[in-house]
Amino acid sequence: MSKIDVAIIGASGYTGGELVRLLTRHPRVNISTVTSRKNNGEDLSSLHPNLQDLDLKFTNPDTKDIDADVVFSALPHGVSMKLVPEYLDNGARVIDLSGDFRFSDVSVYEKWYGMKHEHPDLKAVFGLPEINRDKIKDATLIANPGCFPTGAILSSLPIVENKLVDRIILDSKSGVSGAGISPNNNTHYPTCADNIKPYAIANHRHTPEIREQLRNFGTGTVKVSFTPHLVPVIRGIITTNHSFLLKNDVSASDVHDLYMDYYKNEPFVKVLKDNNIPLLASVRGSNYCQIGGISLDDEDELVVVSAIDNLVKGASGQAIQNMNIMFGFDETEGLKELGLYP
Amino acid sequence: MSKIDVAIIGASGYTGGELVRLLTRHPRVNISTVTSRKNNGEDLSSLHPNLQDLDLKFTNPDTKDIDADVVFSALPHGVSMKLVPEYLDNGARVIDLSGDFRFSDVSVYEKWYGMKHEHPDLKAVFGLPEINRDKIKDATLIANPGCFPTGAILSSLPIVENKLVDRIILDSKSGVSGAGISPNNNTHYPTCADNIKPYAIANHRHTPEIREQLRNFGTGTVKVSFTPHLVPVIRGIITTNHSFLLKNDVSASDVHDLYMDYYKNEPFVKVLKDNNIPLLASVRGSNYCQIGGISLDDEDELVVVSAIDNLVKGASGQAIQNMNIMFGFDETEGLKELGLYP
Amino acid sequence: MSKIDVAIIGASGYTGGELVRLLTRHPRVNISTVTSRKNNGEDLSSLHPNLQDLDLKFTNPDTKDIDADVVFSALPHGVSMKLVPEYLDNGARVIDLSGDFRFSDVSVYEKWYGMKHEHPDLKAVFGLPEINRDKIKDATLIANPGCFPTGAILSSLPIVENKLVDRIILDSKSGVSGAGISPNNNTHYPTCADNIKPYAIANHRHTPEIREQLRNFGTGTVKVSFTPHLVPVIRGIITTNHSFLLKNDVSASDVHDLYMDYYKNEPFVKVLKDNNIPLLASVRGSNYCQIGGISLDDEDELVVVSAIDNLVKGASGQAIQNMNIMFGFDETEGLKELGLYP
Amino acid sequence: MSKIDVAIIGASGYTGGELVRLLTRHPRVNISTVTSRKNNGEDLSSLHPNLQDLDLKFTNPDTKDIDADVVFSALPHGVSMKLVPEYLDNGARVIDLSGDFRFSDVSVYEKWYGMKHEHPDLKAVFGLPEINRDKIKDATLIANPGCFPTGAILSSLPIVENKLVDRIILDSKSGVSGAGISPNNNTHYPTCADNIKPYAIANHRHTPEIREQLRNFGTGTVKVSFTPHLVPVIRGIITTNHSFLLKNDVSASDVHDLYMDYYKNEPFVKVLKDNNIPLLASVRGSNYCQIGGISLDDEDELVVVSAIDNLVKGASGQAIQNMNIMFGFDETEGLKELGLYP
Repeated sequence: MSKIDVAIIGASGYTGGELVRLLTRHPRVNISTVTSRKNNGEDLSSLHPNLQDLDLKFTNPDTKDIDADVVFSALPHGVSMKLVPEYLDNGARVIDLSGDFRFSDVSVYEKWYGMKHEHPDLKAVFGLPEINRDKIKDATLIANPGCFPTGAILSSLPIVENKLVDRIILDSKSGVSGAGISPNNNTHYPTCADNIKPYAIANHRHTPEIREQLRNFGTGTVKVSFTPHLVPVIRGIITTNHSFLLKNDVSASDVHDLYMDYYKNEPFVKVLKDNNIPLLASVRGSNYCQIGGISLDDEDELVVVSAIDNLVKGASGQAIQNMNIMFGFDETEGLKELGLYP
Repeated sequence: MSKIDVAIIGASGYTGGELVRLLTRHPRVNISTVTSRKNNGEDLSSLHPNLQDLDLKFTNPDTKDIDADVVFSALPHGVSMKLVPEYLDNGARVIDLSGDFRFSDVSVYEKWYGMKHEHPDLKAVFGLPEINRDKIKDATLIANPGCFPTGAILSSLPIVENKLVDRIILDSKSGVSGAGISPNNNTHYPTCADNIKPYAIANHRHTPEIREQLRNFGTGTVKVSFTPHLVPVIRGIITTNHSFLLKNDVSASDVHDLYMDYYKNEPFVKVLKDNNIPLLASVRGSNYCQIGGISLDDEDELVVVSAIDNLVKGASGQAIQNMNIMFGFDETEGLKELGLYP
Repeated sequence: MSKIDVAIIGASGYTGGELVRLLTRHPRVNISTVTSRKNNGEDLSSLHPNLQDLDLKFTNPDTKDIDADVVFSALPHGVSMKLVPEYLDNGARVIDLSGDFRFSDVSVYEKWYGMKHEHPDLKAVFGLPEINRDKIKDATLIANPGCFPTGAILSSLPIVENKLVDRIILDSKSGVSGAGISPNNNTHYPTCADNIKPYAIANHRHTPEIREQLRNFGTGTVKVSFTPHLVPVIRGIITTNHSFLLKNDVSASDVHDLYMDYYKNEPFVKVLKDNNIPLLASVRGSNYCQIGGISLDDEDELVVVSAIDNLVKGASGQAIQNMNIMFGFDETEGLKELGLYP
Repeated sequence: MSKIDVAIIGASGYTGGELVRLLTRHPRVNISTVTSRKNNGEDLSSLHPNLQDLDLKFTNPDTKDIDADVVFSALPHGVSMKLVPEYLDNGARVIDLSGDFRFSDVSVYEKWYGMKHEHPDLKAVFGLPEINRDKIKDATLIANPGCFPTGAILSSLPIVENKLVDRIILDSKSGVSGAGISPNNNTHYPTCADNIKPYAIANHRHTPEIREQLRNFGTGTVKVSFTPHLVPVIRGIITTNHSFLLKNDVSASDVHDLYMDYYKNEPFVKVLKDNNIPLLASVRGSNYCQIGGISLDDEDELVVVSAIDNLVKGASGQAIQNMNIMFGFDETEGLKELGLYP
């Protein structure tokens, strides 16, 4: 089988390491370049000690020297926007894991990310295959979704598209790897272990990303509130999706059936049989999103729960899923690994 | 100083051990009896290895032989209701840590706990000092609040009493000690660590307890939904309280001021300066409830966060606080310990 | 490619689940039977929630109806010895994950496992490929090594075979999954988290297993002491191997070179470059054993550290490695997955 | 009761916070000064969120302006040695928590700490009450022991003093709070959780501290090797002490009796009844050292286990115990808190 050449830019972080972990097992991919300005010349295993025995070192080539069929940009927001146009100019297709190209309206980006966008005219396809599969096929630039939005949108789509609710409260719990590879006070083990920490309670920048996507469905006016929590787990996001049914004659079982049907052809969204409750441990290390625990209380509140691995379906796995779609590979290629339980 | 005699019934569990840990340092208390049918004759340290060198063994006396000024009943629900009347007949005042006497309407108990109440006429004072301090003083029977209701009610009272909201979503995250001392599949380390588990999503029996108390305030009609999550921490409950402001001219800062004022004389409810976010680690081992992180998003959702130690303010510490009030001791006696951070 | 039929007996535990997780991705294997007496008829995902969407249910066939090329017996010790002869009689080759066939001298088994052996004449090959690869090829019965012995033996072999030491202290730290899937007081999250627990301090039954294997090398008389600790991690064993160099003119660097050379052709033993220190997180979910951190203090103590995933190289992965050798497959087939870090 | 004035220098770290947590409950102490250069003017709760409602702020006075009966110096090594002489000149008695004054032979300090000692003539009493109680009474300068040495020495003293062993292997497991309050790669939650990390395997600077103290006992020549491990717990050190009995006629039970007798009058060293195994969770937050699990294997290896809270008996609690002895207070004053279990 022919292989495509892949470059991973900014591979010193967790999403970069995860791209390498997954792509080394992908039969259609040759990893040609793995860059890190700071770690130029070092073995990948100096930062990612699981990546032993791969014949790969971090390099720091000029942008113009990166010759690849697809570039994964795992750079921070603000940096990615500067370089992505150059990779496109080189003829590569680009999957950007930063927030820089996720918004159709640049002013939303500029408000929530607090900086001027340098390429406001460059438009990307929002890389959530479950809503944009067809557009992804032909895209040259993919904005890979944020980790929280992935779990949040997937937990909401069926009820929003079917106009069952008009307001959603997303209470999300994220593992600490979501904060990245650089240590800080919030990720210091003694204060992070045995603790739960709500943060960016009413103003997390993933909020507008979720809103934009969900308002493409249903009435287009669903209200969305989002509160993240840092929890003492390494990987994974549980999203507890609270809403209020607009109709009286819908049961929890009806809603479960709706989700089963909605996602029945999706390779990576698993609505759990018997409405079991998703677990982080079931999706750990895998590209699956589990949905379940669909419940209705006696005051008309509906709850839906989703679980993903923030580094896989929430980032690098989804990026590879997008690559598979873009290059006509089997959508699950390189992503068939089951969750690591326990 | 004179001392009162205290009996702890059903002391083999975590709340029993915690009562002993705290009461051994209480200058007005003599622990006269610590019972466990199953562990009769054993040292307390056989179950509670921190309780070394206390000259105390589990005993299994007849109810009528328990001679104490106050009886703490740490028995399971259903069992407690049978024995509490006997302790009262003996002349003791009783603080019951089970759910058996928490509801004014016995039919609510019978529905949610799934059993017939054997003493429907026996009425208790709901032992949350912040709402019932005066009634507690003279009570002979206290129904000590559930752990989730303590954090949930304290996070809600000011906005409910002031009619700022008419619907509250309580998304709570509890440490595993809340599941008790007996191991089961849900508390097995390999499946409980590095995981987050929503459970009893729309039908936890603490829901009606929270509703009853909150509907004594404000309009009396606030709707309350409650979803608990098991999180990989040992102790503590974070309650993320989501609601929707009914008035447009109220800011997050106004709400913070309201909470500061509402609780300004409470010894154990600390509304955090600068609206800091509560942490489990700040209240670990202590009787404090921290409240903070009060935020308002741009779609009118209000969030308030509370943190307690489920075994202290959520159970044994609150029981001692009630005892202090009942016997005219300083309300903070034996409960001055600060949180164990980190 | 042709496939072999595989039966997994006693698949309700963690090693059973892990065999399925790994074998579903193995191109030469068809899982024909997965048994559990207790869970007969249930989906595998009822116990192993990561194993979604596999078309497999637990069954409970008669031993004589199990028709497979290879049988993995994941039964408890004492049970396995009764059934293994029947699988052999059926014509299957058997890989037994229990302790029943690990000792050449049955009396050692009977002393340490406290029971009569029912088939003392049935001899197995000890399934550690690094010492018995050739014997494994033709074996009909493999005794798959214990988890602790795997990490302990691999950390010791080069210095024992080269007669550098005559006494070894193995201080091992194991994740809680090593205690199995059944909850008990020792695995209860509230007492297991944030804790370290030495156990079976001087009499763990893996001690004689380690001793027997190591005494096949070097002088045949090395003394071995072994102390396990339960640590709050899910998977993995760190073995800290303490010994005393018999010769004065050997440096830590010499010992590192010796290990590098000794294992240079082993696909799953990785002696770390630059003598880096092994991490559980580097081998999590993978079949690798990392060795490193080789150090010599100024009072002649030598320390060597090894890390494995107890459920993979310490159990199910190693069993599959043995199967690959037995059936002439590439030894790494189905086992190429890198560690899940972080 | 009269009170003494206490100054805590360098109180921004965990040992500083722990001194305040414990001393606020001490009836004979007035905390007059709490310094931090970097956090001058801030509330203590900005760094130590459990220390709410104390009327204390960090200050940064000139050394000469610190007027206290006792100064706790919680400064880093190298810094402490510069300032301690000035506090002494001011007339205060000083308890230094750094490593600067722990060695009788300055050249040992200079070798292991890699710096010139600026006050080689200034001699301190090594503040382990169990060996130096009488000298502590009159000391003006106490070198408070390191956390590892505290657990290591207490686990070794009876067998060393009684010449039962001539070589000890100390395999210690420490919680992450021992690494201090500043985040770094080693303490970053995603790499620290679910992991075990040996470090400074054969050259930790606590090694010579342990050796010096133990060589004051028995034959004066015991060999000591020490290997620390970072484990995913917040607080606590388990020391697994491996040695080899020199005499054949000594049983594990004899050794247990020896320890029981040796420590029978010590308020904070608890040799466990029935030779139970110490647990971190039993001493969490308390000043107790538990010793137990004393075992002898069939190849003459002796194992003894000790458990302490590294921040209490391993640092701040022990410092207060020293203060109590110095000022003639009850040795247990302010330190009676039991462990926080679970």
